[in-house]
Amino acid sequence: MMTGELTLVAANKTFGGWNKRYRHTSATLGCEMVFTIFLPPGASAESPVPVVYWLSGLTCTDENFITKAGAQRIAAELGLALVAPDTSPRGEDVPDDPDKAYDFGLGAGFYLNATQQPWSSHYRMYDYVVAELPTLIEQAFPVSDVRSVMGHSMGGHGALICALRNPGRYCAVSAFAPIVNPMAVPWGQKAFSGYLGLDRQSWREWDASVLMETAAERLPILIDQGDRDDFLDTQLRPEILQEVAARVGHPMTVRMQAGYDHSYYFIASFIEDHLRYHAEALKG
Amino acid sequence: MMTGELTLVAANKTFGGWNKRYRHTSATLGCEMVFTIFLPPGASAESPVPVVYWLSGLTCTDENFITKAGAQRIAAELGLALVAPDTSPRGEDVPDDPDKAYDFGLGAGFYLNATQQPWSSHYRMYDYVVAELPTLIEQAFPVSDVRSVMGHSMGGHGALICALRNPGRYCAVSAFAPIVNPMAVPWGQKAFSGYLGLDRQSWREWDASVLMETAAERLPILIDQGDRDDFLDTQLRPEILQEVAARVGHPMTVRMQAGYDHSYYFIASFIEDHLRYHAEALKG
Repeated sequence: MMTGELTLVAANKTFGGWNKRYRHTSATLGCEMVFTIFLPPGASAESPVPVVYWLSGLTCTDENFITKAGAQRIAAELGLALVAPDTSPRGEDVPDDPDKAYDFGLGAGFYLNATQQPWSSHYRMYDYVVAELPTLIEQAFPVSDVRSVMGHSMGGHGALICALRNPGRYCAVSAFAPIVNPMAVPWGQKAFSGYLGLDRQSWREWDASVLMETAAERLPILIDQGDRDDFLDTQLRPEILQEVAARVGHPMTVRMQAGYDHSYYFIASFIEDHLRYHAEALKG
Repeated sequence: MMTGELTLVAANKTFGGWNKRYRHTSATLGCEMVFTIFLPPGASAESPVPVVYWLSGLTCTDENFITKAGAQRIAAELGLALVAPDTSPRGEDVPDDPDKAYDFGLGAGFYLNATQQPWSSHYRMYDYVVAELPTLIEQAFPVSDVRSVMGHSMGGHGALICALRNPGRYCAVSAFAPIVNPMAVPWGQKAFSGYLGLDRQSWREWDASVLMETAAERLPILIDQGDRDDFLDTQLRPEILQEVAARVGHPMTVRMQAGYDHSYYFIASFIEDHLRYHAEALKG
């Protein structure tokens, strides 16, 4: 299979649109990757639709969001495409954590470009989701180059850094229970130590709370966070990003949702709000 | 664990209500069973809510519907509880198909009471979903005794026979891609031969197309069926039930949905219509 070639794995009609799963060879990641795109009814070469990129959390593939979030109903109504990539490079040639930990290696790419061996030859999820994948999507499907990004947990971190590092590239950004300051929490410290090495200076370009200090664009951020989330105090700590946002004047709304946890039951409950928020920016 | 005792396995807030998963010992089935109940916001002893029972298809557990159908959003709005049982008895003591086939034994209880050994001591899903489970649910949760039933594929068959055999017990019945005439199709013939034996006369009380002929109650039936469903012509054959309904005057609507398949992507697309249809009957 050549770079750029797409192999259809599955296609299911849903809410009048189509959920399509593809395999392709990623030049950036040096392996085969799978993603799912939802195309709303009416998307055509004559009427291309904007794209919302969804970045998933630790252990997920493209399927968690696609099967559990209930996003297609709203995307169909609003005329938005949804794209869900995997969360890391995959395959036999791709190194995994020797202990098969859930929070490093396969399923835990952290949306950065690794600099340390053996990770640096495959673990380049940042370049994949910011550049290679959108280029492919915009060539192969009836979508426009109008984009936004959202994600959950590790993928919320991904969404925030993609937006903060790329002024003008996304029309909207939001997150569910994001890791906002990976340098300060165990998940991020483990991942950054492995992928980037022990020089903490190099970590700063992949940390939303650092990047926000000097962001060239003040794209508003919407965050939902459950107050019964088991990871809230140890890994997520939205108050750190809130403090930076208040200090530098970055527009940000953090909604603490009483009783909700870290699961897709939480995401499903508020995905409609997020997609309407994105649609306003994507179509405004 | 004693009969009637419920052990909470998981609880997740969603759409303002609670999704709760329980384990209990079923006297009817002679094993431990797991089910999920969704309780909408506002359900209380003072304001008990009606219950929609969802019966799943081959290979499923309670989780397929609960995680993939997107039903909680609508049930929360309409003030309905949802109950999703498993599709067969489970556990080490429960006999399974010797070939581990997906369409017989574990995950394939067919919502009947088996009469043949070794199945008859555990495979009594009909009595479980019609009697034991509702009794338990109505004792343990803030719900009323106002019930309806719906299901998918094998569970569509289950919903139809539960309603047709029990005049007055359900306020509404509907199905997605149901097996409507198990006696006439391979899935049903295999299951009925095993669970009920080779005397086809005994099969008739578990077949919707037969039961409808002499049903004491003409409870209207709503069916959605995808026209790209791989099982449509071999296993489902809704036209058989349509012919009976027309002949005996049983009110039934079959909606052929263009382009849809047998998956939860299909169910999710039309679950809102079904729940609104049920709510009207449950609250009317």
